[in-house]
Amino acid sequence: MHSEQRAIADGLLRSHGINCALFANPLSVGWLTGYVPPVPLGGRSPFSGGPLLVWYAGGEFVFIVPDTAAADAAASACPLVTYTTYSVDEPIAGAVHLADVLRAVAGRSALTSTAVGVEAVDLPVSLWSVILAGLPSTCAVVHIDGWLKPHQMIKTEAEIAALRASFALTDVGHHAARGAVRAGRREIDVWTDVEAAIQRAAGRRLSLGNDCVVGYRQNNVGGWPEDLEIRAGDAVIVDLSVVYRGYHSDSAATYYAGEPSAKQQDMHRTVARALEQGLALIKPGAVACDIDRSVRQCIAAAGHPVYAHHTGHGVGLSPHEDPRIVPYNRQVLAQGMVLMLEPGIYYPGETGVRLEDAVLVTDTGAEVLTHHDKSLP
Amino acid sequence: MHSEQRAIADGLLRSHGINCALFANPLSVGWLTGYVPPVPLGGRSPFSGGPLLVWYAGGEFVFIVPDTAAADAAASACPLVTYTTYSVDEPIAGAVHLADVLRAVAGRSALTSTAVGVEAVDLPVSLWSVILAGLPSTCAVVHIDGWLKPHQMIKTEAEIAALRASFALTDVGHHAARGAVRAGRREIDVWTDVEAAIQRAAGRRLSLGNDCVVGYRQNNVGGWPEDLEIRAGDAVIVDLSVVYRGYHSDSAATYYAGEPSAKQQDMHRTVARALEQGLALIKPGAVACDIDRSVRQCIAAAGHPVYAHHTGHGVGLSPHEDPRIVPYNRQVLAQGMVLMLEPGIYYPGETGVRLEDAVLVTDTGAEVLTHHDKSLP
Repeated sequence: MHSEQRAIADGLLRSHGINCALFANPLSVGWLTGYVPPVPLGGRSPFSGGPLLVWYAGGEFVFIVPDTAAADAAASACPLVTYTTYSVDEPIAGAVHLADVLRAVAGRSALTSTAVGVEAVDLPVSLWSVILAGLPSTCAVVHIDGWLKPHQMIKTEAEIAALRASFALTDVGHHAARGAVRAGRREIDVWTDVEAAIQRAAGRRLSLGNDCVVGYRQNNVGGWPEDLEIRAGDAVIVDLSVVYRGYHSDSAATYYAGEPSAKQQDMHRTVARALEQGLALIKPGAVACDIDRSVRQCIAAAGHPVYAHHTGHGVGLSPHEDPRIVPYNRQVLAQGMVLMLEPGIYYPGETGVRLEDAVLVTDTGAEVLTHHDKSLP
Repeated sequence: MHSEQRAIADGLLRSHGINCALFANPLSVGWLTGYVPPVPLGGRSPFSGGPLLVWYAGGEFVFIVPDTAAADAAASACPLVTYTTYSVDEPIAGAVHLADVLRAVAGRSALTSTAVGVEAVDLPVSLWSVILAGLPSTCAVVHIDGWLKPHQMIKTEAEIAALRASFALTDVGHHAARGAVRAGRREIDVWTDVEAAIQRAAGRRLSLGNDCVVGYRQNNVGGWPEDLEIRAGDAVIVDLSVVYRGYHSDSAATYYAGEPSAKQQDMHRTVARALEQGLALIKPGAVACDIDRSVRQCIAAAGHPVYAHHTGHGVGLSPHEDPRIVPYNRQVLAQGMVLMLEPGIYYPGETGVRLEDAVLVTDTGAEVLTHHDKSLP
């Protein structure tokens, strides 16, 4: 898996004269190997020795993982090196074992390297010191954080297939959300209906973001579902991100407990128009900030306050990646990018609307990847 | 919050002559500040500049967090330093902003330090280089990874209250699980019932682990719920860990689709006896490996295979921490520890049983913190 990605990284490193490199950013490691980590519980896993690592040397990518991840990591078709993380016969010492295998894997190639790349923003000091100890004094150290990002913007066919499957699950979630929003229920009740529907459809546990907020919240742009009751006439913004096979989907809609007011209907129609206008502009050669400006103007022209957040962003192994659809960004769109557009109108403490679609940039235009019902009731 | 913990850490660092220190392990940061991070989605947050940090100097603990966490982090009552992680006016550059504020916070005190402590297993190279650049050449660098662990074993009153609330939620989950296990349903259906019940009771989104496995799995010790159907007579092990206010609960039980067989009943009664025997041994002065041996012997004496996993472990900010109840561990139990005991019997590909309780070590014995029904149907 992901041999296309490794070929790109290989070419990139060679073109900069880098003959060894250590990748530690989980997005880089996922992109280079296709490995999908388990649903996280938070905190720091007691059985992890540190981040998943990819060591690059001599054109080869070696994948260093805890023994518990070996079976899943084998699908990457990279040479695999594992270390012990769990035993009842000795104290938990994953960090020590990881440093040991890194020394064994990287030691020989580091000795003869002239330039070594490192993802310094994610690599722990304890592991870097292992590499540093073996480097010749003449070896250059190059921070390569963010180097893969421009390449990660353009999705492969396999990535687009994974994203389609992930977006299909947010569609399932939105179908459940539309039925779940009723007066007398709470944000958390809507959320649990959505989460259960998505996981039942997927047949497995999945991470789920992002927002489920009733309109009368003071900050009604986003937030976790809470113990807040939905009253008749309230709007609820539901913004869903499913992580499926490592790929993040995203999509939002706004639902109502009963009949929306005339103001809410006007807001909803305005946001829908802004979204349509933005989607119509997406094609290879379009410029991110032009789309941003056009969508914001559509909201302003209708006399509503313009949202403070981004108009859109890329998605993939991360829920928010390049290209960002924001005022400063002169990024030119290209075939294979997958973008979100998500205009909204918010009256703090009163009501809010957001609608969001995903779109794949094709050779001539765009294909919408989200198929949830965003209409007024 | 957590000023008791900071006083302990202050004394510990002083006793080693360390006058500056940088904490980067999320468990250390949570323990020193009481800060509870949001439910994670996985991967690497695009809006994080790096780990949450605590900088110690002159007896003071400065908490360095992204601006989005400032409101929640204020409850720590530590001096707070924030950095920008999100803007629509500039590219996302949290890592750069974090390095800048760390330089500003640590620069002056690092200049005059004689010994600086660092959690090297979790501190990224990019942030350590900021500190290193300001250290006098005579300053000693001391790796302090794991130094807080022995102190984290003993819970404060506030931590015990948080753990009680977390265990109350796993009790809710088990009540739902007992009703959810029926022939024709799948592991994932049981899981979504449990997850919804817990989140509805809590009134908010929560992370939930650990296992939901039907007995006929080849590895039936643990694993995520999958698309596997429960058949009449099957056992399902449900092992739940809720992360509430940062504190992990844990507890397991085994449920049956219909009537358990004579063999399953014998297994279940044997495991219940082993668990009771283990719980009866817990008191201040007891030794971890003695408890481990006693519980394993109870399983072996009944003629069943002895489980390969630990007999138990501590819980707190981590789902598995010291003291481990394992064969090698001569740790003496003390008042204020919170332990899990979880014996099981597994016949791979056929059926399995595990029962698990939590217990607080009191001044004279033990108090069971889990109150779920673990009986046979």
